[in-house]
This record gives sequence, C-alpha cells and structure tokens, in this order.
Amino acid sequence: MKAVVLCSGGLDSSTVLYQAKAQGWECYAISFDYQQRHRRELESAGAIASSVGVVEHQTVRFDLRKWGGSALTDNSIDLPESRSLAEMATSIPVTYVPARNTIFLSFALSYAEAIGASRIYIGVNALDYSGYPDCRSDYLQAMQQAFRLGTKQGREGEEIEIVAPLIDLKKTEIVQLGNKLGVPWQKTWSCYAGGEVACGVCDSCRLRLAAFEELGLTDPLPYATR
Amino acid sequence: MKAVVLCSGGLDSSTVLYQAKAQGWECYAISFDYQQRHRRELESAGAIASSVGVVEHQTVRFDLRKWGGSALTDNSIDLPESRSLAEMATSIPVTYVPARNTIFLSFALSYAEAIGASRIYIGVNALDYSGYPDCRSDYLQAMQQAFRLGTKQGREGEEIEIVAPLIDLKKTEIVQLGNKLGVPWQKTWSCYAGGEVACGVCDSCRLRLAAFEELGLTDPLPYATR
Repeated sequence: MKAVVLCSGGLDSSTVLYQAKAQGWECYAISFDYQQRHRRELESAGAIASSVGVVEHQTVRFDLRKWGGSALTDNSIDLPESRSLAEMATSIPVTYVPARNTIFLSFALSYAEAIGASRIYIGVNALDYSGYPDCRSDYLQAMQQAFRLGTKQGREGEEIEIVAPLIDLKKTEIVQLGNKLGVPWQKTWSCYAGGEVACGVCDSCRLRLAAFEELGLTDPLPYATR
Repeated sequence: MKAVVLCSGGLDSSTVLYQAKAQGWECYAISFDYQQRHRRELESAGAIASSVGVVEHQTVRFDLRKWGGSALTDNSIDLPESRSLAEMATSIPVTYVPARNTIFLSFALSYAEAIGASRIYIGVNALDYSGYPDCRSDYLQAMQQAFRLGTKQGREGEEIEIVAPLIDLKKTEIVQLGNKLGVPWQKTWSCYAGGEVACGVCDSCRLRLAAFEELGLTDPLPYATR
C-alpha cells in the first residue's frame, strides 16, 4: 500500500512520516522548495526521509516569492519574534503563506495519482497555531471532496484519502508520539528564520521549545538563544 | 477590480481573458511551464496576454515530468491521433494530467490572495472533451469551498470566486464568442504535439478544427495537415 507523505523536515511532518512507516505504508515523501526563507528545512527533510527509509523522495521546486504575501516569502515582512503562545493564537499570522497547503496538497495529489497511492499524509495541526486557515478540518474535508471529483482515480471510485493524524493533538502530544516512534529530533528543523542555527525566538521555535519544556525534556537541536 | 485569469495560450482561455478584460476587470494572467510536451503554448500565452493588455503576466515553473502519468508529461505515452469527436468523449484520455487543474487553481488562488483579487477566471469546458474530471462543475464547486475555508481572505468573508464562463458552451459557441470579442486566433495555440506547426491530428487540434469547420470558418493557424 502506497502513501504520499508531505515532509517539510519539521517536527510535525517527521512524526507523521515515522507513523505512516510504522503502520506499514510504503512511503513516498514529497517536499517543496518554494524559495521559503527557511529553505534550510529541505536538508532536514532529506535527512528524515532517508532515516525512516522512504521508497522515493521528491522535491518540487517553484517560486512563491514572485508574489510574496508572507513573511516566509518576502524578506521585507519581518518575522514576529518572542511572542507568547497566547499572542500567536489571536489572529492569522504574517507567516501565513497564501494557499500554501492547497498548493502542497495539489502536488501530493498529482504524485499520488501518478504512482497509484491511496493515501496522502499531512502533518497539519489545528490546536496550536490555530490561526492558519489551511490547517483545519473543514478545509481538509473540502479538499477531500475536490480530490474525489477532480481526479481520474476519484471518479473511478478509488479515492485518494487525506489523512491528518495530528490534527487534534497538542504540540506536547506530538512530541510524545514522536518519542515513541523514535523520531530523531536532532535531524529535524522548525525555525522560520533561515539561519545556520535555529533562532529560538520565531513563533515556530517558541512553540517547539515550549512543548519540550512542558514535558521536562530537552530539544536536542542547537539554538542561538542558549 | 482585480481578476486572476488562467492563460494557457489556447482558444478557450484566450476567449476568457478577452471577455474578462471586456467586462472591465484588471487582468492578472497566470501561465504554467510544467515541462509539458507543448511548451510552445507559452509563447502564445505571452502574445495573447500582451495583445489584450494585462496588468501583469506570471509564468510559474515546475516539473510534472518527475512523476509523469500523462501523454503530455511522459514522451513514452503516445498522443492519440485522428480520433473522431465521438471517440474522444468515451473515456478519460491519456492526455489527462493528474490533478493539473487542482495545481493550476491553487497557484491562481495564492496569486489572487497575495494581490487582493476577487475572482479567478478559468476556461474549462465540460461539454466537449467531457472526459476530463477536473473540467466539471461539481469539481469546481468543491474547489470553491476549499478556497473559502483554506485562505485568510475566505475566512474573513471576502471570498475569491472561481468563474468558468465557458463551462456549458460548445466549442463552436466559444469560437463565436471569441470572434465577437476579437480574439486574435492566429496568436493562440492548442496543439498537444509540441511541433513548430500545429499537427492537425491530436485531439486538441481536431476539436478546434471541427469547430471552425462547423461554423464555415477557417482557422487562421497553419497546420501540418493542410
């Protein structure tokens, strides 16, 4: 049984990849070089894909800096720094990239249909960072319907299912799940800032560090702030 | 009022672009270089966009040959030749590209949201060539729902509307509409084969030629077959 797994190299998608593999799926990883500020994550995506042992790892390249609209694709928009978790939850952050998950899922769908996969795994998570509109269940259900109707495979009754196992988990629960699955956290990458070492102050670093701290664990990644 | 218009350089999307412009929209054209067999169409897309006068024309580049799955992205799959219109209508053709319109619409959505556009025009057409699953109304409705839920703009109540003005038109009606709008057919390109001159025998050429013929008109494009 083949599954396409979206793999950013981050904590969430690495956990999903390890889980899909543990459940016996033949995993086909897909990553995206969209000229994101933190393209450094792609090295981690490659390291994680090869650690877990995927059948194939595709990196799709395109340029979302052409129209920007996000702090991740336009360097003139500053990354928020040192925000509390409460502050992060109040609104859609400037790190929202217009339609990014719609683009990612579309490529995953194309890949899945070409190789005859029956599932697409995505590590979205609606609880923390609930500001992102394209990380919620109702959105994924709408995409599922588009997948059913917009593909040959779907029209022929062999639906490609979107699976989001982390959707209702807290970040601490994801870390616990990843620990159980043996995810090598030192090979992952979450920081938005694009430096050599994780910044420790962007929203993504802060969410990650807070989860490890709440569990009384140490994140093995080096951080500029410690 | 800004609209993003998908522009392949073909007969249908050129007509849609001319219509959107005639209705007073500020048009932002978007084209895709996906390493298609008939990349030649991109020259036509550029010529049409500049003829009609768009505000901006974006060409997004990525490679769908990585996983193929279509005669348009895998040269080992032959293009069907000299099929009748009745034959074309019987099944999903090998020129179906997995999830292509889903990918195209996703990029259009990202672009639309980044520039604050309120519409996306797409020249799909369900009557002729009804084999393509991603050219039908129910699919577009599902994408509309995903657009509503998966974007900042949609969640804030300013929906980006998918408009498919040709969805229920016959190819002959599209040619008549294009004639009324003054679409310069000689600058468009429909052929799948990727040659210097349109082949005249692929499904796309045959549909186009049949429409002109039925109307008693001559397609001004040169064809290898005449």
